[in-house]
Amino acid sequence: MVSPNHRGIFSMLLSFWLLASPVLAIWPQPSSISTGESTLWIKSGLSVSYNGKNGGVGRAMNNIIHKNFVPWMLYNRMELEATEPSLFKPKTYITHLDITQTGKDSSKTFKPLAGEVDESYTLNVDKRGKASITAVSSTGVLRALETFSQLFYQHSKGAYFYTTSAPVKITDKPEYDHRGILFDVSRSFFPMESIMRTIDAMSYNKMNRIHIHMTDSQSWPLEIPALPELHEKGAYARGKTYSPSDLATIQRYAVNRGIQPIIEIDTPGHFGIVALSHPELVAGWDSTPWTSYCAEPPCGQIRLNEPKVDPFLDTLMEDLLPRLSPYSAYFHTGGDEVNFNMYSLDPSVGTNDSAVIVPLLQKFIDKHHARVRKTGLVPMVWEEIPADYNITIGKDVVIQSWLGDEAIASLTADGHKVITSNYNYWYLDCGRGQWLNFAGADLETYYPFGDWCTPYKNWRLVYSYDPRANLTAKQAKLVLGGELAAWSESIDDATIDDILWPRASAAGEVLWSSPKGRAQIEAAPRLATFREFMIARGVKSATVHMPYCTQGLNQTACQYL
Amino acid sequence: MVSPNHRGIFSMLLSFWLLASPVLAIWPQPSSISTGESTLWIKSGLSVSYNGKNGGVGRAMNNIIHKNFVPWMLYNRMELEATEPSLFKPKTYITHLDITQTGKDSSKTFKPLAGEVDESYTLNVDKRGKASITAVSSTGVLRALETFSQLFYQHSKGAYFYTTSAPVKITDKPEYDHRGILFDVSRSFFPMESIMRTIDAMSYNKMNRIHIHMTDSQSWPLEIPALPELHEKGAYARGKTYSPSDLATIQRYAVNRGIQPIIEIDTPGHFGIVALSHPELVAGWDSTPWTSYCAEPPCGQIRLNEPKVDPFLDTLMEDLLPRLSPYSAYFHTGGDEVNFNMYSLDPSVGTNDSAVIVPLLQKFIDKHHARVRKTGLVPMVWEEIPADYNITIGKDVVIQSWLGDEAIASLTADGHKVITSNYNYWYLDCGRGQWLNFAGADLETYYPFGDWCTPYKNWRLVYSYDPRANLTAKQAKLVLGGELAAWSESIDDATIDDILWPRASAAGEVLWSSPKGRAQIEAAPRLATFREFMIARGVKSATVHMPYCTQGLNQTACQYL
Repeated sequence: MVSPNHRGIFSMLLSFWLLASPVLAIWPQPSSISTGESTLWIKSGLSVSYNGKNGGVGRAMNNIIHKNFVPWMLYNRMELEATEPSLFKPKTYITHLDITQTGKDSSKTFKPLAGEVDESYTLNVDKRGKASITAVSSTGVLRALETFSQLFYQHSKGAYFYTTSAPVKITDKPEYDHRGILFDVSRSFFPMESIMRTIDAMSYNKMNRIHIHMTDSQSWPLEIPALPELHEKGAYARGKTYSPSDLATIQRYAVNRGIQPIIEIDTPGHFGIVALSHPELVAGWDSTPWTSYCAEPPCGQIRLNEPKVDPFLDTLMEDLLPRLSPYSAYFHTGGDEVNFNMYSLDPSVGTNDSAVIVPLLQKFIDKHHARVRKTGLVPMVWEEIPADYNITIGKDVVIQSWLGDEAIASLTADGHKVITSNYNYWYLDCGRGQWLNFAGADLETYYPFGDWCTPYKNWRLVYSYDPRANLTAKQAKLVLGGELAAWSESIDDATIDDILWPRASAAGEVLWSSPKGRAQIEAAPRLATFREFMIARGVKSATVHMPYCTQGLNQTACQYL
Repeated sequence: MVSPNHRGIFSMLLSFWLLASPVLAIWPQPSSISTGESTLWIKSGLSVSYNGKNGGVGRAMNNIIHKNFVPWMLYNRMELEATEPSLFKPKTYITHLDITQTGKDSSKTFKPLAGEVDESYTLNVDKRGKASITAVSSTGVLRALETFSQLFYQHSKGAYFYTTSAPVKITDKPEYDHRGILFDVSRSFFPMESIMRTIDAMSYNKMNRIHIHMTDSQSWPLEIPALPELHEKGAYARGKTYSPSDLATIQRYAVNRGIQPIIEIDTPGHFGIVALSHPELVAGWDSTPWTSYCAEPPCGQIRLNEPKVDPFLDTLMEDLLPRLSPYSAYFHTGGDEVNFNMYSLDPSVGTNDSAVIVPLLQKFIDKHHARVRKTGLVPMVWEEIPADYNITIGKDVVIQSWLGDEAIASLTADGHKVITSNYNYWYLDCGRGQWLNFAGADLETYYPFGDWCTPYKNWRLVYSYDPRANLTAKQAKLVLGGELAAWSESIDDATIDDILWPRASAAGEVLWSSPKGRAQIEAAPRLATFREFMIARGVKSATVHMPYCTQGLNQTACQYL
């Protein structure tokens, strides 16, 4: 279906639309799909067989029957009632859903390193109402069930659900192994529902990694039983914390949806908040003017030459990591934006000279990564550690890059595995202006108060990104995937859905389907349809465009001409 | 309280904060306010006297008791429980709320022209729990009650409500008479709840005009009983319409909250949709390439020399205007973006020559404004009518300007009344990228797909706008106020709250308080507090910044330094 030739797609869509029903619009685009023009109905109580098990069947049926929508915005204007399938003609129902899992799940299925789980599947729905899924792993079954749930719309007359595209034949598998969202619960506190709603939405997009940026200089919401003073002094308020049981709830909720939770405790930068309970561990807490010492207030980094740091990190990691390893293959050690000036304020370092700092940082990283590996986890780091500070790290380490294409080219040339959060495309907090306030002469200097990574990353821009652009085949293989970053200096529960969706969906398709050609014209109607599934399921996604552009024949009208 | 000297405000805030309770943070800032340090409690059942009546008392009490919030994000980190008022000490309650209306309401109170209603009030709350309001009009009473409701926070232990700022003495009045939001229900359809929630939120911001852009080329959602074919052909779908009873509901809901509904039927441009029911009235419906004939698809304008136009508009206006005039002093006739090229496609005009078109347009406007005046309403128009097309209009007409400071200077120099929606500051749909799709060579040409009015209008930018900048006193008097524009090509119910708030709040304060100096440092903590009131009342406003920046002593920490 995916073609770089938009004129071809235009006429193809047009011919579909003359049938006056919505085309089948699966998001992200499957590797291969063929559809027909027969109508099938579905209701609860169909016969399901599955030689394995997971919660996917119940959730898919619940989404079809209880969280569906009447697609008035997909039919031609005012033609829904006249052209949707008649309730008064004989109906063919889906009678069977047969699920065959051809492989055996292992613990790696639920906490895979990149490439360790097979997410492929096939889905067939024949004209007589027999649906079948095959997949190697239970994760593949989950992906198939998500696709299955996107086949059906609700009828305008009530609780009747149909597809007009039977028979359907789909074979599908992801292009990238790491398809994630970075969720920052430290700058703003997010209630559990917010995280779980995001996990649900990610599963609709077939995404498979939720990277939780758990702590930062602004707050420490994570309860560490061995070090309760961390949250008692460092959370924003009582109750604005994640208990061990909350963490386990998030982990299980994610894993049950084929999503691996990856926890980040950022070190040695972005660590200021620990000064409130352990001042001896932190250099330059809340230094001013903060612009001289860190990227945003309040400043604070781990001291690099202070003997109390190692025992503290030992205690922290011995408490936390064994609670992560049952659900995760990775632990993110942070490593971004370490400010060398700050170490002039650290009496045990006393200089900003990199000749002094880098060897100390090397020692710090070596020890810290050893802690992570000891628990069977693979360390992740931000790219500055190897790229800017020249620290030597293991080839097992996955590097999260955010500074753009050149950084990825150079890291992969060195043989490192990377995931990309290229800020030019995938930083979702960008382009909405400053969250800092300005006074005095700065009011004029910084007018009109744009942020550092403007412009806003519209879904079309998100969608235009190719994580493997201009890489050799060998380098490309080292790009495991990517993550959309939702840094939360200016985002909280009230608006997180709008920030993430449908923009993260666009990236979800880049990572699942690798749509070469990046054809907005082909993608827009499908994304607009999928957006309505998200809305119906309680995710307050922004629009793709107005209903004028989504209705029937108009689906290609909103093109710049 | 308002001072251009931010250092003075910094130390004033600091001294307040050493008391460790949230300062009283009324939004928009009252003309004059003095506060103390005594605690008062409030519960339902206090004695209320009022020599007039409106629903404001019930709503204010409901907001205080049932839609309040525990202000953990305003107290110092982790200090809420230790520093909020004790439940175990004797409590002084508000016992009385005495409301005195000193003037008599008239029909003008409920549908005033600019300046015809006095919205001023005084509010006093003494230390012993006696509260009193005086106002000239019932609208002033509504404004006072809104301020009153912002005095109280919820206690962390449950349904207890307090202020720590008694005694409170406030005198207040608006700077501008027209403080509005343009709500576009044509590009996207909005359910009634969405409009009513916005009216509620506007009332929290003491705004007083909701301008409903009711029809456009994309859809005609308004039911006109005399011309039912308009919505039957032109709505997006069945049920996506506003019946006469829906319209009356919106009107009454708004007027009861001190907000005047102003309906716009845009003419002669932005009228394409009428071609579906009355093709003989419309030039250039859906012409392509649309960029040659209109600002966005689908194109379509009223024909200027077609005899059937007048009887049609007579019928339309005779149906609609008598339903508007009981609630509105104004009717908006539109007039923006009339594309002269389109009239080459109109056989009765047949040219794009302005020497031919302008006299026809003058005739059109004269007749149309006469229809409006006949029903006792004052016409409003978009600025292009007088400014770009040189049409002569009456001095009664209120002109809505969107093209910036020069346009306002020139219109007011000519003696016209204006309201401003300067797109450089107050176009809320801007800066989130294109809603059009791109293909072929355009993918490269228009990368990264920014929209025409980028950047995004962050609240700091919205707040920096002075509608009367660089005008003479005589000209300034003609600037009646302004409207924030929420054009809905890329906005619907799912995200309208995030689009409007807190940015429209920033403009609300510009229009109510005219904060010279535009001190972000002073405004940010108040706006962050007010945002939490909106969230508690069910309005999903975006953040001002993260909790780190709103907590206690940190309220000045998030400054660029």
